[in-house]
Parts: sequence; C-alpha cells; structure tokens
Amino acid sequence: MTSAIPSVDEKHYQAARARQDQLIKPTGALGRLEDIACWFAARQGCEIPAELQPAIAVFAADHGVAAQNVSAYPAAVTRAMLSSLANGQAAIAVLARAINATYVVVDVGVNSNDSQTNVHTERIAPGTKDLSMQSAMTLQQAERAIATGQRHATQVIAQGANILIAGEVGIGNTTSAACLISALTQLDPGMLVGSGTGLDAKGRAHKLEMVKRALQRVPLKSSSAMQLLSEFGGFEIAAMTGYYLQAASEGIPVLLDGYISAAAALLAAGIQPAVREWMLASHQSAELGHALALERLQLKPLLSLGMRLGEGSGAAVAFPLLQTALRLHREMATFAEASVPNNV
Amino acid sequence: MTSAIPSVDEKHYQAARARQDQLIKPTGALGRLEDIACWFAARQGCEIPAELQPAIAVFAADHGVAAQNVSAYPAAVTRAMLSSLANGQAAIAVLARAINATYVVVDVGVNSNDSQTNVHTERIAPGTKDLSMQSAMTLQQAERAIATGQRHATQVIAQGANILIAGEVGIGNTTSAACLISALTQLDPGMLVGSGTGLDAKGRAHKLEMVKRALQRVPLKSSSAMQLLSEFGGFEIAAMTGYYLQAASEGIPVLLDGYISAAAALLAAGIQPAVREWMLASHQSAELGHALALERLQLKPLLSLGMRLGEGSGAAVAFPLLQTALRLHREMATFAEASVPNNV
Repeated sequence: MTSAIPSVDEKHYQAARARQDQLIKPTGALGRLEDIACWFAARQGCEIPAELQPAIAVFAADHGVAAQNVSAYPAAVTRAMLSSLANGQAAIAVLARAINATYVVVDVGVNSNDSQTNVHTERIAPGTKDLSMQSAMTLQQAERAIATGQRHATQVIAQGANILIAGEVGIGNTTSAACLISALTQLDPGMLVGSGTGLDAKGRAHKLEMVKRALQRVPLKSSSAMQLLSEFGGFEIAAMTGYYLQAASEGIPVLLDGYISAAAALLAAGIQPAVREWMLASHQSAELGHALALERLQLKPLLSLGMRLGEGSGAAVAFPLLQTALRLHREMATFAEASVPNNV
Repeated sequence: MTSAIPSVDEKHYQAARARQDQLIKPTGALGRLEDIACWFAARQGCEIPAELQPAIAVFAADHGVAAQNVSAYPAAVTRAMLSSLANGQAAIAVLARAINATYVVVDVGVNSNDSQTNVHTERIAPGTKDLSMQSAMTLQQAERAIATGQRHATQVIAQGANILIAGEVGIGNTTSAACLISALTQLDPGMLVGSGTGLDAKGRAHKLEMVKRALQRVPLKSSSAMQLLSEFGGFEIAAMTGYYLQAASEGIPVLLDGYISAAAALLAAGIQPAVREWMLASHQSAELGHALALERLQLKPLLSLGMRLGEGSGAAVAFPLLQTALRLHREMATFAEASVPNNV
C-alpha cells in the first residue's frame, strides 16, 4: 500500500553546511536557521534549495467517542467548522492565504449527509465508532482513509508543492490521539491526556478513564500500527498518516502541526520508520503529551507559543521561519564575495 | 532631551481580548498570538490593529576596546560590513527585503574616513575610546548619538512605520553591552560575558577581565543611565537607545533584537522607565546573559533558535509572527458570524 521512502542526500547537506560557514556572519550565528537550510538541501538534493511551495490539506472527521463527553465542545462543531474552513474564515484558512499555500479541505468522515462547496467530500463513514467500546473502524476503512490522504499528497506534489502540511478538525480527536500515542510509545496515558479544546480537571479525569478503557480493550503489544489505527484512530488521523507517508515516498518534506499531527506522524513511523527523515516539527503545543510525542519522533519544535488549536495552524504559523532560513541561505554573500575579513 | 511616553490603552486591550474570545477556536487556543493581537490593540488604540509597516535601522560603530582582543573578528570587520549592509548582502538586508521593511544603515562612529553609498554617514567620532581604560565617550557625544537615533525614528514614523526595529554592527560591542547590562542590573559580569562572535573559553576569560576592569573604574551606584552610557557605551548602542525612546514617545512599538539590543533597552528604561511598555522581545539569543537581561526588562521572547548574529536579525526573523497574529485577529470569523456552536 505504501511505497519505499528515499534516503536523504548527505552530500548536499555538507555542501550547504560549507556554504553556511562562508556566509558573512560568525560561524553558527544563525542557529537553527542554518540547520533548516542544510536540512532542505539534503532533501531537495541541491546546495541552495529552491523556494518553498507549501500545500495544506485539512482533513475533517467525527469520532464516536465524542458521545462520551470527552470534549468541551459539542460534536456538531466538526460539521459546522467545515464551512468556515471552506469559506476562508477559520484560522487555518486565514493562515493558508497568509503563506500563499495551496489549500484543500477534505471531509473524510464527518457525521453529515450534506456536501459543501469547496469541500472534497470523501467520507469513509459518518464518523468512527466509539473507541471506548469497540474498534473505531475496520482495517479496510483505515486503509481507505490512508489512501485518501495519499491521493491528496500526490495531487499537490504533481502541481509543484514541495512542502506539505496536514491539519485536522474533529471533535473528540485528542482522545483518539492519546490512545494512539500511548499505544505506539508505551507512555502512560496519564501523561498524554490533556485539556483538548478546554476540559477542566474533572473532564480530563473522565477523558483519561475513556482512554484507559479503550487501551484495555486491545492487545497492544501484538498489534501492528495499522491495527492500532483501526482500533483508536479517526479517519482524519488516518488520512494525515497517508499524506505524510506519500509525501516522504515522493521525496517531499512535511511540516508537522500539534498533538493530533504527532499521533499521525507516530503511526506513519510505525508503518515506515524512514518517514521520520522527511518530517520537521513546527511547534510545541500546550497540549499535555505533545512534547513527549515529539521526543519519541526525535524532532525538536521550532516554536513554543502555547498554541493548541490544531487545523494545521501551528505548522502554518511556523512556516515563514523556513522561508526565512532558505532566503538567508540563498541571498547572503560569502566573505569572499563581500570582501569582509573572516576570523581565520 | 526625551519627551514623555504615552500610556497604553487598557480599554482597547480588553476589547481585543473580548474579540479573541469570540473567534472560532477554543478560548486561548492561539496562545501568545492572542496576546500579541491584544498588545497591539492597546498600543494602536483600536480593537483591530492596522497592518504592520516595519522600519529597520542598523547603526554601526567601532569600539576602542576592540584593541584589547575581545572579539573573534578583527575590528576592520565593522567597516567592511557597512557595504554589505548597504548593498543588500548582509543578513539583515536580506531580511529587510523579506519583510518589506523600510531599511536604513547609519554609520554613527565607524573608524573610517570614507562615505559609502546607501549609508547615512553621521559619525560622532571614529569609534569610542577603550572602555577598559577610560570613558568610552563624553556625555555630549552620548547625547548626540541618542539624538541621531531619535531623528531616524521620527523620520520613519513620519513616513508611516508603525513598528520599529533597531540593529547594530560593531566589533567589540558585546563587551560594551556586558558592562552596561551589569551596571544597569547589578548582575555579576561573569553571568553576562559570552562568546560574542565566537570566542573560546580563554578569549572569554580575557574579555571578562576587561569588563571587570571597566566596571571597577566607575562609581556604578552613583552613576545615572546617561553616565553609564558615556562610560561603557558604543555610539550604535546610544543610537538604538534614542531610537527606542523616540518610538515610545510617539506611541510606536519597538521589536527588540538580541544582546546588544537588550543593553540599549535597559539604558532606555533607565532614562524613561515607561519605554518598556512599548517593547516586545523577538528572540532569546545564544549569547550568555541575554535571557537575564530580558528577565529584568520583564519581556518574554517569542523565539529561541540559538541565533547570535545581531544586526537586528532576530527581530526581523520573528516579525512575521506579529503579522500572523494580527491577521488572524482581523480575518477569523466569530462564532456568531460563522454559525459555529460555542461551548457556553
């Protein structure tokens, strides 16, 4: 179902590093911006990476577990958000305009019968089953949701996108993500269940109860990443997983978002470990457990602004830093070009 | 010499906060981006702040103390950098283009007799005296350098700039800044002397010796901020101080850069404490002591990317985050406008 993932090009990483060391600044003075430039050089296979053309796909789906009151917002919000995502009023839609990204909204499983303008309606089912009681989806549904994400990745890459961002909307999905992250990392669910959209302590305790109940249902150690996805996943999380895997298999980097995105990234790495090489972490969210998930992915976030919105918003907010890093790499002069004395 | 600084408008801060609480996202989910929007609302005096028009002024000057080998680079770099700043090849010049900033380069005291194209040559003197042995400048020179910064602030504000960034180039200026920050905060110089452009441990120990020697020369407790500036300052640091003070007195926010910028900010606050209300911290640099200086200013940096270049580069790199915060504040819909159910 997924293709092999190409390895990155150490030679161009080193060439870019050598260039950085010759730019008119003290060695290393641009900090992580230097690393970013070299990172893209290794992935684009050239010393001076081309400008970034970002694509954002927002996947929306409902979660059966929302019936258990695991969110501060009613399940109807998922469906209501679809039109705001599509008509440009939601945060990620505003951000997509700000960074000139190709932008698509995909309904992979919202509990609705409508089709909306500017939304790709590609529902696997009208929401998942309640993961606290039963498998959220069948393996076949998980595969179809992954394939949906893959198809959207392929499409934007064919149109020239060279950095992909996946976002999501789905009331209940931090519960799903907490199950997935716990199952994939063996971290205690108590460290992974946060406030989501704004639960109080009592709500969080109840949510943790639901997560524990779900985890107890499943033989975690003998389950594959695909099986865990079908047990605990959301359709939007599956689609993000497919989006990440496909981007990497076509040699295109992805910029991760927050907590839900980390669950999809861990799933993708569970299916094909090499996918990690194509991931950058945009931000550390306020959601409990996101930092731990990123640590498992061995990724260091660029920003930490206390965001916890999802939608892909943290990735889009961090995106200009990548552009800046590449622009400096491209446009600064070397010591020789500028006739500035170096310190050697 | 400096005018009164207006107070900020709490009423519009609250109006902006009320708007944030109505935008289609969980309350607080945009983290510090929400705070930034409200911060600008209070300073622009309107619920929805206007788009930011940034101006960058880079002040360059030489330091007599460079003769004591306190830098990893030769003093001649200051002069050589002037043309790279002016012809668009230096980091800050690249960044100024990237953010569409008004951009000026001002020679306030480089050790040179030339005038360069695209550089405002407004030298107070060809570099300061060696602060480890004597006063770096006279009080009159300090006042003239401050006035130079003020004049440049007034000029860009008259042209429509509504957020100001000051940058600097000056070999030896982290030594000057360490003296100033120590004298203004009573922090131990050992916590404030870093590697600058790249000193090794031995070089740093020698630099610390020079800083201590300078501090011992001066009756710190009985000295005013202006006197400390004349004892330890650089002309570029004085100009930045004036630039910050003038912006605040005209009700225009400034975005601080790194270590040198923090020294100028502390000086400005030493002269007029209310100036702090108009300051935002862009990043925390890798330079030892910058975090401590920001703490004293009660400012929390937006980024921490290990940068240590100066020039205003950290501020310019962080600037898009401010634009993003304001754009979200302006363009996102409210729950009522979008017909999305709220959680209340």
